[in-house]
Amino acid sequence: MAGSADSCVRVPVDTGTSRYEILIGRSLLGDPASWEGLPRGRHAVIVSNTTVAPLWGAALREALQAHYTRVTVVELPDGEAHKDWPALSRIFDHLLTAGCDRKTVLFALGGGVVGDMTGFAAGCYMRGVPFVQVPTTLLAQVDSSVGGKTAINHPLGKNMIGLFYQPRRVVCDLDTLSTLPRREYVAGLAEVIKYGPIADAGFLAWLEDHLDELLARDDAALTHAIRRSCEIKAQVVGEDEREAGLRAILNFGHTFGHAIETGLGYGEWLHGEAVGCGMAMAADLSVELGMLPPEDARRLHRLLSRAGLPLRGPALGAARYLELMGHDKKSEAGQIRFVLLRRLGDAVVMPADDAVVSRVVERRSVDG
Amino acid sequence: MAGSADSCVRVPVDTGTSRYEILIGRSLLGDPASWEGLPRGRHAVIVSNTTVAPLWGAALREALQAHYTRVTVVELPDGEAHKDWPALSRIFDHLLTAGCDRKTVLFALGGGVVGDMTGFAAGCYMRGVPFVQVPTTLLAQVDSSVGGKTAINHPLGKNMIGLFYQPRRVVCDLDTLSTLPRREYVAGLAEVIKYGPIADAGFLAWLEDHLDELLARDDAALTHAIRRSCEIKAQVVGEDEREAGLRAILNFGHTFGHAIETGLGYGEWLHGEAVGCGMAMAADLSVELGMLPPEDARRLHRLLSRAGLPLRGPALGAARYLELMGHDKKSEAGQIRFVLLRRLGDAVVMPADDAVVSRVVERRSVDG
Repeated sequence: MAGSADSCVRVPVDTGTSRYEILIGRSLLGDPASWEGLPRGRHAVIVSNTTVAPLWGAALREALQAHYTRVTVVELPDGEAHKDWPALSRIFDHLLTAGCDRKTVLFALGGGVVGDMTGFAAGCYMRGVPFVQVPTTLLAQVDSSVGGKTAINHPLGKNMIGLFYQPRRVVCDLDTLSTLPRREYVAGLAEVIKYGPIADAGFLAWLEDHLDELLARDDAALTHAIRRSCEIKAQVVGEDEREAGLRAILNFGHTFGHAIETGLGYGEWLHGEAVGCGMAMAADLSVELGMLPPEDARRLHRLLSRAGLPLRGPALGAARYLELMGHDKKSEAGQIRFVLLRRLGDAVVMPADDAVVSRVVERRSVDG
Repeated sequence: MAGSADSCVRVPVDTGTSRYEILIGRSLLGDPASWEGLPRGRHAVIVSNTTVAPLWGAALREALQAHYTRVTVVELPDGEAHKDWPALSRIFDHLLTAGCDRKTVLFALGGGVVGDMTGFAAGCYMRGVPFVQVPTTLLAQVDSSVGGKTAINHPLGKNMIGLFYQPRRVVCDLDTLSTLPRREYVAGLAEVIKYGPIADAGFLAWLEDHLDELLARDDAALTHAIRRSCEIKAQVVGEDEREAGLRAILNFGHTFGHAIETGLGYGEWLHGEAVGCGMAMAADLSVELGMLPPEDARRLHRLLSRAGLPLRGPALGAARYLELMGHDKKSEAGQIRFVLLRRLGDAVVMPADDAVVSRVVERRSVDG
């Protein structure tokens, strides 16, 4: 399918403090029209990584040269293991060495790690410069590039240091998904699937019907899945930019998932894989607490399994899971808060008894 | 003079995005009433340094225990040389090790460095927790604790990485100034004096009349000087929180001053000393450009000199000054913007010809 910025799908986002658009379509990245109407400085800086920059860096750079006098590229090391201060510092070094001023615009070209780090750097550099998200993974397109959460990891916890800082635009070019390894693509599907159980039973049914097309990366299916995911996320974020309440439902599967990622060391499992398994655990916990019919949990498990996501967590031991979850940002006064399901399409945030959580974790671990 | 939170001076600040009060008076720090009405979490963390914590840490801790279940203290190394990532990281390590959640409140007990770093840490920890400024130096009381600028330094430039992040309250306890070394006290006077030439000729005249009382740290004079400084700063910040325009006048003397600090390495000169000398240079430049009568510049020079501030900069060479100023955040597209005087009490921001700037710098350097 041919495409361009003129014919693409546009999802508006209004967070209360800022408004921007998500563009979804083919061949957007190399089209100068995709970058019209953004803040204009002399200098645009593309932040990418060693995997994505060789694939898409040149096309983006060329398109941006229609609007900016100078376009430079910073390449970060690839992977969640490098979502840390030393890598962030490389962005600052580049900006300062290149003499970038307050009107410089940053472009995050890559997955969630690149997006989170670029957003954080943009929020801090000279106390804030504009930035644009150009997500090249399915996960980043449906989740991490929308909503303004930015962060780096700390050895004691994931995403512990960061900001709420909104991009000026998000450009999802479907072409970039063609170069995405299957494992990463499937991990991204976990975040797509998430929007069904937490907010839209109809979307869940649509996913059950169209999973094969999605796995084949069919154009029409992909466009609908990304659009609907972004719409749901934009609506939730619009009602609760700073995660005072509702927004927490977007973390369905993430409390367990972060424990898996932190427990194994970042980068062992992909984020989406951990979230997929975390959703399976959260559904089990919802059943265990008498909130969700067992057949609804089984329906979700079946979809996750068909997508190729892991349903069993590493055998860290229930005590270690609980300890790791206690460090989660969503915990308050040491109490862990879980996103649980009342039915498919309706999530609620609440604490749960340690003993019940332990039982669920043990049952869903590889040795359990 | 006895004092307490009930009888102190209160200056309201309204930045457009947040409102808070500056309390100015005696014996505020150890009075639980000073800390009433702040956000309540279980945990309060006092961030201080190895010089201030032994003097005032215990009193503040005791007063806060009336409101928080747990009060802990982080001690940072003292000085501008430590306004960097490793020191910031110690705050994060403490917060995570102590299991601090999103409702933890941070208290910055110290000078500008402690305030800037604590504010930045509060703005980033779990994407933002509340914080309170408890400035213990004159400079921090009249300048750095008001207005929400937070930052750390980068080897290539001062305050390059930071945020606009507003405190929930500022508590200026005059008692803490009694332990301040004279050199630091005088450096703080530079920022007090600044408010005269940029915004209030009447205040400048008052300072000329009351400088001896101020140097003797007289209670009434100090209270008036701090109050008027905070009022002017609050007004300017209220009209321009994010430094789009007007707020830049607060940087009178700072463009030259930052060049001095960066050129010598942080910590060689005190910030206020560099700003004092920078104001002398900026006044000269205003005269040189035909904007300010020479006698007005001489009046400002005389006041700075009486206060004990240095009027001559280090002999870095004009080229080096220009290079360092080009890295200043206030520069745009490589052009340096100076805060200059049209008359005493009226400042304007504009570029200036390199040759004229060089002449002024050479004349005001120790070997010039």
